[in-house]
Amino acid sequence: MNIDIITIGDEILIGQIVDTNSAWMAQKLNEEGINVRQITSISDDPEHITESFTEAAKRVNLVLVTGGLGPTKDDKTKDTICSYFNTRLISSSEVLQNIEDLLSKRGIGLNRLNRDQALVPESSRIFQNKLGTAPGLLLEKDGCSFIFMPGVPYEMKYLMEFEVLPYLRNSFQTSTIFHRTVLTQGLPESMLAEKIADWEDALPDYIKLAYLPSPQGVRLRLSARGKDHSEMEAEIGVRIKALEQLIKANIYGFDDESPAGTIGKILTEKGWTVSTAESCTGGAIARLFTENPGSSLYFKGSLVAYSNEIKINLLGIAEETLARHGAVSREVVEKMATEACRLMNTDFSVATSGIAGPGGGTEEKPVGTVWIAVAHGDEVISQLYNFGNDRERNIIRTGQTALFMLRKLMLSYNNSMENN
Amino acid sequence: MNIDIITIGDEILIGQIVDTNSAWMAQKLNEEGINVRQITSISDDPEHITESFTEAAKRVNLVLVTGGLGPTKDDKTKDTICSYFNTRLISSSEVLQNIEDLLSKRGIGLNRLNRDQALVPESSRIFQNKLGTAPGLLLEKDGCSFIFMPGVPYEMKYLMEFEVLPYLRNSFQTSTIFHRTVLTQGLPESMLAEKIADWEDALPDYIKLAYLPSPQGVRLRLSARGKDHSEMEAEIGVRIKALEQLIKANIYGFDDESPAGTIGKILTEKGWTVSTAESCTGGAIARLFTENPGSSLYFKGSLVAYSNEIKINLLGIAEETLARHGAVSREVVEKMATEACRLMNTDFSVATSGIAGPGGGTEEKPVGTVWIAVAHGDEVISQLYNFGNDRERNIIRTGQTALFMLRKLMLSYNNSMENN
Repeated sequence: MNIDIITIGDEILIGQIVDTNSAWMAQKLNEEGINVRQITSISDDPEHITESFTEAAKRVNLVLVTGGLGPTKDDKTKDTICSYFNTRLISSSEVLQNIEDLLSKRGIGLNRLNRDQALVPESSRIFQNKLGTAPGLLLEKDGCSFIFMPGVPYEMKYLMEFEVLPYLRNSFQTSTIFHRTVLTQGLPESMLAEKIADWEDALPDYIKLAYLPSPQGVRLRLSARGKDHSEMEAEIGVRIKALEQLIKANIYGFDDESPAGTIGKILTEKGWTVSTAESCTGGAIARLFTENPGSSLYFKGSLVAYSNEIKINLLGIAEETLARHGAVSREVVEKMATEACRLMNTDFSVATSGIAGPGGGTEEKPVGTVWIAVAHGDEVISQLYNFGNDRERNIIRTGQTALFMLRKLMLSYNNSMENN
Repeated sequence: MNIDIITIGDEILIGQIVDTNSAWMAQKLNEEGINVRQITSISDDPEHITESFTEAAKRVNLVLVTGGLGPTKDDKTKDTICSYFNTRLISSSEVLQNIEDLLSKRGIGLNRLNRDQALVPESSRIFQNKLGTAPGLLLEKDGCSFIFMPGVPYEMKYLMEFEVLPYLRNSFQTSTIFHRTVLTQGLPESMLAEKIADWEDALPDYIKLAYLPSPQGVRLRLSARGKDHSEMEAEIGVRIKALEQLIKANIYGFDDESPAGTIGKILTEKGWTVSTAESCTGGAIARLFTENPGSSLYFKGSLVAYSNEIKINLLGIAEETLARHGAVSREVVEKMATEACRLMNTDFSVATSGIAGPGGGTEEKPVGTVWIAVAHGDEVISQLYNFGNDRERNIIRTGQTALFMLRKLMLSYNNSMENN
């Protein structure tokens, strides 16, 4: 089954917001075996809306629409919907009740704008929105169903999970698609492609491979479409086993796993703990660990030592070391790492010191120069990098590289433990 | 002038990546007075590509296309381009030279995949890509120009800034659009709309207003389109002055400013410094400060005290306090804030302690319970919140609310200083 997603609203077209809704919806739909044919972002101009609806309806029989249902005046979508579906707005007591309940919980009275939100096209089926004042709406024309949802991400997600997806499961027979993504680090796309060329050529027709570069490394997505879910899962499993023979050291995880998340799994399993001492990453690595649920089991804390004063006073870096080698040096970053282990009493630690930019570069140490150290007690490994000119990219790549180094160090202990 | 953006590749349609490229391009184009009519994401199916090109060419005379030009086998776009534009692939010595230069800098030899990247449609104009192996390409058909760029964000950005935008400026007469976005905090969308309804009604026809909710608060975007840039800028300036009369306390900045960035500006101006002591935000607030260039002028450091052991050992929280009140309590968060000021020798500090979830909630302190404190020396203000069930949302809202509290505290000192 093919569907289209249409996003209404100027804010995407002028680049003021990034369309994360469509990506989220596409992912959920794919898991149901529903194929997203096209994602289209349009303005709230009535003519453009009508044109897009007409074009989508020619090619698919289901369209999911987000945006254009908020309480304020930049939303003219409802009128356009009424004329496209040849219906009129009526006040829904069911929707009004939901709005009143929501507002009274927040201690707010009903205003005219909220009252207008209870107006829905007469011929629509309503999906109640327990998290917001704009309901989901289903309308049909010429054999094509349109489902409208508000653009606020958590309201849309609620409606999708609890109303729209269950409705789709009941209403449409869907074929299955099985995806597995292999997450790799340490090989650029073209080198990776050469290394696995024979393996790739041997894939059967019904398994598609895609290379997806990301700041964390290249992801390899395998997709199989068919009737029997477990058969496809097994076949992809066999292919991945063969892939692991070729690039085992470069595979850090699968699917939605993050580098910090997979490290967290190993730490939890081993009962190990970790801390960070961060200068140029300014808390970014601590953030990567702590965005994972359950991180308190292994992540104890971090010292973000952005100023030299804090490097001296809290991390025990000697003023002389700073004067002689500078803050961005092997000597400083190694001491930061071992001190983090000691001060925060952790098995492992990560430390960074670099020049993220745009200012602060010198001829000897240009913007992008970064020292990274990983430590296990007093054992410390450090490495110098240059990641280029972009501040945000420097912070992200430093964080990801630090995690890659930490993973290698941890695995060396893991293996030596297993061998003993 | 109207243009379309088309993104080619399965990864957006299956929701594996979020389309940040289009948002970035749309923003740049808008600044040039170029109106983005539609953003379309399609698969790399040749028929679908051809159909989208045909439809776009009916309505606009310029289309920017990203994706489908990488070195690996999931890219069939070039063949489709050749048949749509009725041309054939030839090897470009100019592109091959660029590829060789790039690879030799990285110490890598040329392989077959790289050599294929030098194949370009015969009738295309080439935009050299100094950051990657795939060039930008311009082709024309029936009076509509298509510009193709690789999908890797930093390569696309390079090509846009240094090749495509300069080309567009030279080739097309563009009218001007002037945007200004007013950033507000502390008022939900419908309350804000009521408060400024009269002001909004009085806006002239050529100024459009849009409400854009975000995790940082509601943004109000004013857009004026016309010939005279400075006239529109002046008119919008007058309207914003009037708006400030109505909601001054809720406006924290303009346009691309972030809450942490605007706080950074005040800190820099006053010569003040700040530190954080974070539990549930796990470094997220330090990250917000340090993503701003120049943050080393005012941000000194952070203690991420995720475990109680670190709260005790490094932040001097008494074990008895933790035992009696728990880590998520006024007593603990206030001590964290004042200790951060003292230990890191800063004028201001922010501290957080809460239950981000999904685990760790109790009946008395459910998931989403968060204490936030802001301190100036020994003066400390703290507040209890409940932000709900979603871990990532709890971290983000805690961070934003902490910054809002810090801003209020700072401004009270700022004003009292000015009054003295």
